[in-house]
Amino acid sequence: MTHPFDAAIALHPEADNRYGGHTSAAYANMVGPFGGITAASLLHAICRHPARLGDPLAFTVNFAGPVADGPFQLHAVPVRTNRSTQHWRVELIQDDTVATTATAVFGVRRETWSSNELTRPAVPPAAEVAVTPPPGRVAWMAQYELRYITGGLPDFRHLPAPDDSIRRDTTTAVWVRDEPQRPLDFLSLASICDVFIPRIYLRRARPVPAGTVSITTYFHADAAVLAAQGSEPVLGVARAQNFRNGFFDQSAEVWGAGEVLLASTHQIVYYKE
Amino acid sequence: MTHPFDAAIALHPEADNRYGGHTSAAYANMVGPFGGITAASLLHAICRHPARLGDPLAFTVNFAGPVADGPFQLHAVPVRTNRSTQHWRVELIQDDTVATTATAVFGVRRETWSSNELTRPAVPPAAEVAVTPPPGRVAWMAQYELRYITGGLPDFRHLPAPDDSIRRDTTTAVWVRDEPQRPLDFLSLASICDVFIPRIYLRRARPVPAGTVSITTYFHADAAVLAAQGSEPVLGVARAQNFRNGFFDQSAEVWGAGEVLLASTHQIVYYKE
Repeated sequence: MTHPFDAAIALHPEADNRYGGHTSAAYANMVGPFGGITAASLLHAICRHPARLGDPLAFTVNFAGPVADGPFQLHAVPVRTNRSTQHWRVELIQDDTVATTATAVFGVRRETWSSNELTRPAVPPAAEVAVTPPPGRVAWMAQYELRYITGGLPDFRHLPAPDDSIRRDTTTAVWVRDEPQRPLDFLSLASICDVFIPRIYLRRARPVPAGTVSITTYFHADAAVLAAQGSEPVLGVARAQNFRNGFFDQSAEVWGAGEVLLASTHQIVYYKE
Repeated sequence: MTHPFDAAIALHPEADNRYGGHTSAAYANMVGPFGGITAASLLHAICRHPARLGDPLAFTVNFAGPVADGPFQLHAVPVRTNRSTQHWRVELIQDDTVATTATAVFGVRRETWSSNELTRPAVPPAAEVAVTPPPGRVAWMAQYELRYITGGLPDFRHLPAPDDSIRRDTTTAVWVRDEPQRPLDFLSLASICDVFIPRIYLRRARPVPAGTVSITTYFHADAAVLAAQGSEPVLGVARAQNFRNGFFDQSAEVWGAGEVLLASTHQIVYYKE
């Protein structure tokens, strides 16, 4: 049986550098698809391209306009191939209009001196943290098992009035895995990097219209690290840095088994407040 | 008299969406141009494009291959224009080969509730920090006045043997401005975001072959904030997050007058160690 994630990112080749896909009801957001699944679909087009060299290192996705429910085309172009790195340009197109743009750097890693600089925050193991029931109104959140240690969805039934004198911390720490379980790969990791609720919900303690404009993910994991992860939960830790005149940024880390950093990910988000 | 920065990023229109430029000896790196000046040149092509809407919000530059000293072409395409945001694709081309790819999101900001989440670290004012004389062998470093509070260039004359048992902090805090002085704008800010020496120099306390693969900058400043900054020094604070099998990442902030966050910037860097 095909996992819903694999069904959602499924592509069929249409021509050189061109693939067809279709949005998935299982990964729908309030309007259009969840950004993470769109990012994973774009990365998928590179991963299955016959010219692909190595694994993802850096991946930037710009959400240029809404993606409508229905079919879409992906245009994935290997712009430059070096001995051990490869640069890609990808676009998601609907009705001859570009809805999403992306660039990616792929590479073949060699073993070198390695070390972490950040260390993983100390948190209770996933098994000791309660699973948050998905809010009914957002389909994609039911595709993830989310265990919030801190910074979960505010209780929107009890909204305090905005109070600028309160500076709430926007940090989220959450254990995440695909629901149902699925062994982690670069595609599901790319999607998980967008799993964090908008930081402004936490800062303002209420829902605020918001949407990711651009997300950049750096992959620290290689295929061996991902294989060791299997379908165990990963720990995501996210925080905002600055909110200014309609846009805020978020930086986050995704940690795997053995407290290994799998990915660091950054995004800038539109908000209306 | 033209400032060397403006001379370095000067472009002339060649055709629709196409501009010609030339590398600058003043901003040369050990091989090819300083990455920051290349990034600024790509952003410049958008800023002077007749279709340009608003100011930069997000900007990703992928260094796909070496840029040779000499002329280059920039191909800047407005991929999608919305009511208040605009998405760009830019490429730097030499001899019909793509050397650099980029995407940018521009936008028209409106005034909203705003607040910082990060706070600027407490450091001595620029006037109390000594200027580091530029190392003679790298031209571009002489184009910046750099006052390191912590994490300056290691003294390469006295290289300790690599010692994996020592975990040196990779944080740099540095006051920066253009030399000679020049009022800050989006272009010089984009360049300053790449001014940090490779984090692995600090971690390993010695020079290690390294080069930026991809850099993403989020602009928090708008034109009014930049105008207030003038040519006063900005504070850059950078740190590594993870070094693994040939690539490490760096996150940094650039702070302006009044402890305002001007930009947050992230990059992934190749290293050979």
